Amino acid sequence: MKIKEIKTLLEKKKANYALFYNLNSLSTNPNMFYFSQYSGLGALIIPKKQAPLLIVPEMEFQRAKKGNIKRAYSMDKKKFFESIHNIIKKRKLNSKNIAIDNNNFTLNAHKHFKKQFKRTKTKDISLDCLKLRQTKTQKEIQILKKSCDYASKILKKTINQFKSLKTEAEVAAFLEYESKKLGLDISFPPVVASGSNASIPHHEPANKKLKKGFCVMDFGVKYKGYCSDITRTIYLGKPNKKEKEIYNFLLNIQKNIIKNIKIGNECSKIYENCVKDLKKYSKYFTHGLGHGVGVEIHELPNLTLNSKDKIQENTVFTIEPGIYIPKKLGIRIEDTILMKKRPINLTKIPKDLLIV
Amino acid sequence: MKIKEIKTLLEKKKANYALFYNLNSLSTNPNMFYFSQYSGLGALIIPKKQAPLLIVPEMEFQRAKKGNIKRAYSMDKKKFFESIHNIIKKRKLNSKNIAIDNNNFTLNAHKHFKKQFKRTKTKDISLDCLKLRQTKTQKEIQILKKSCDYASKILKKTINQFKSLKTEAEVAAFLEYESKKLGLDISFPPVVASGSNASIPHHEPANKKLKKGFCVMDFGVKYKGYCSDITRTIYLGKPNKKEKEIYNFLLNIQKNIIKNIKIGNECSKIYENCVKDLKKYSKYFTHGLGHGVGVEIHELPNLTLNSKDKIQENTVFTIEPGIYIPKKLGIRIEDTILMKKRPINLTKIPKDLLIV
Repeated sequence: MKIKEIKTLLEKKKANYALFYNLNSLSTNPNMFYFSQYSGLGALIIPKKQAPLLIVPEMEFQRAKKGNIKRAYSMDKKKFFESIHNIIKKRKLNSKNIAIDNNNFTLNAHKHFKKQFKRTKTKDISLDCLKLRQTKTQKEIQILKKSCDYASKILKKTINQFKSLKTEAEVAAFLEYESKKLGLDISFPPVVASGSNASIPHHEPANKKLKKGFCVMDFGVKYKGYCSDITRTIYLGKPNKKEKEIYNFLLNIQKNIIKNIKIGNECSKIYENCVKDLKKYSKYFTHGLGHGVGVEIHELPNLTLNSKDKIQENTVFTIEPGIYIPKKLGIRIEDTILMKKRPINLTKIPKDLLIV
Repeated sequence: MKIKEIKTLLEKKKANYALFYNLNSLSTNPNMFYFSQYSGLGALIIPKKQAPLLIVPEMEFQRAKKGNIKRAYSMDKKKFFESIHNIIKKRKLNSKNIAIDNNNFTLNAHKHFKKQFKRTKTKDISLDCLKLRQTKTQKEIQILKKSCDYASKILKKTINQFKSLKTEAEVAAFLEYESKKLGLDISFPPVVASGSNASIPHHEPANKKLKKGFCVMDFGVKYKGYCSDITRTIYLGKPNKKEKEIYNFLLNIQKNIIKNIKIGNECSKIYENCVKDLKKYSKYFTHGLGHGVGVEIHELPNLTLNSKDKIQENTVFTIEPGIYIPKKLGIRIEDTILMKKRPINLTKIPKDLLIV
């Protein structure tokens, strides 16, 4: 995506090319994937003028060419930066000033890089890349919509079959299995937190019988590399009046926040308003209100107290207020929102309290 | 694990404390997890003399205290290194010389770190940590044994139900589902490669009908954060005499390598001997013979041509020779081995060629 835009950026930064790399076959460099649609081992070079190229181990050659970058060169994985340097020299690219992503460049990699690129000056474009990724192209929006559709469908199916699942781990496994069967990856390990466990926002699903009370399920898939994110809280057993009140109190806040979002809103203000609305429960709201979603599950904008971000058209972000009373209960309601002229909810599952 | 040992190391390196951090809630810093059993966001400080401490966002407080480090302090995630610096100052720790892990320290984190720790000198202990982690404690061995038991059981169950599975993706999804149901994570995305696909060692399971011929399944789980790793190759359909011969040829080599491993053996020699044993098939053996296993799926020792490692008591590593004839077939047989006085196979599933 946005190859043209990054080339303009390189021009502005007076950089000869941008270099991204991935040295860990089990993880993805988000910017490398964003610009190339390739997520394996190797390096991506985007010259200011010429066409971009991928440098990958021979065993990844076929995979590399499946993305939008058709020039792939083979490298020796053991001599990672030496291989890259050789190919760059052969292609006669000037390496005087280059742009790198300091968020995805380790000190050790930099040491090895410096041995080869001795006189190269580097400029950090990590924040520029995050900002490029913040507003989505029409193609990305189509993909994100589909990702949210899949996540909604799978979560709905799981809730419908809830009676047949016995433990938090089983619910999480079911969510993943339904995703994998469709050839989809998950965007993060699902949270399934029942009873008092629900008071831990990032609780890891336990292999123990589901507890009575609120059960928080936070889940998303990756479709074509793009994340979705949705949370629903259901109730196992019979909620008392007070519990129903708290749930509906939070639900109304969440709906109102979404309804009132406008282009140009300061994200910190949206967060502050939520805290105000939560009144006496605000001390039980211990995380951010939301985050951008894209090739990473956490992107810009940040909907937090200290955020400097503003809501822009074509951004995609979550709205996820929560109330967590330690050792007692937890409730979170989260949707993924696409900002057009008005906010559009991409994760469409009913939100009224479901009792199973 | 090994808090005492890292303190001795800090003494030797003249470092006041070690600092590890994790800024990505979806990934784990292996060294931070190793020393603290905490895998979330935050930082771990291990002073040379005093007790270690974790500095984490408020929402991770309960999780942090579940590990072996009981002192947890709360931080502002947005002022990551500022929070850490403040707590370190309050605890009156000297920050003149500190040890960090350059493999898990990005250039950007280093920039923010430097703004706070202005006069601090850092020493890289990435390799020292890898070496500490190479030999396992008795507690780790118990956990690794259980991890291998689980992986063996799940792979066995999958093989028994093989007839009901139709595609490589379905087999992989089944392996994952059975793991997740038990509350276990997988240690890497399973490889399921049938027919000619098996000739690609890192083949990604396809959503297509399983092909006749050898089918390689490479799989492992994470139990309490510790990995297991096992590969079995079965046969779909009817193998001819030649195919049976190749399989048994490789199986005998694998068994012999394991049987003959002794403490003090050079890993490069073990690799070389395997290549010799493979005779005319050695050109079809395109990867390392094995790797250490622990909190990461790839640790020391490396059983490769250029390795400088030796087999030590209480190391845990894989032995996984393979034969890959391009576009034709692939066979790999892998076990996870614990080195005591003699080698002990932790992954106990029969290895005779299974025909389904």
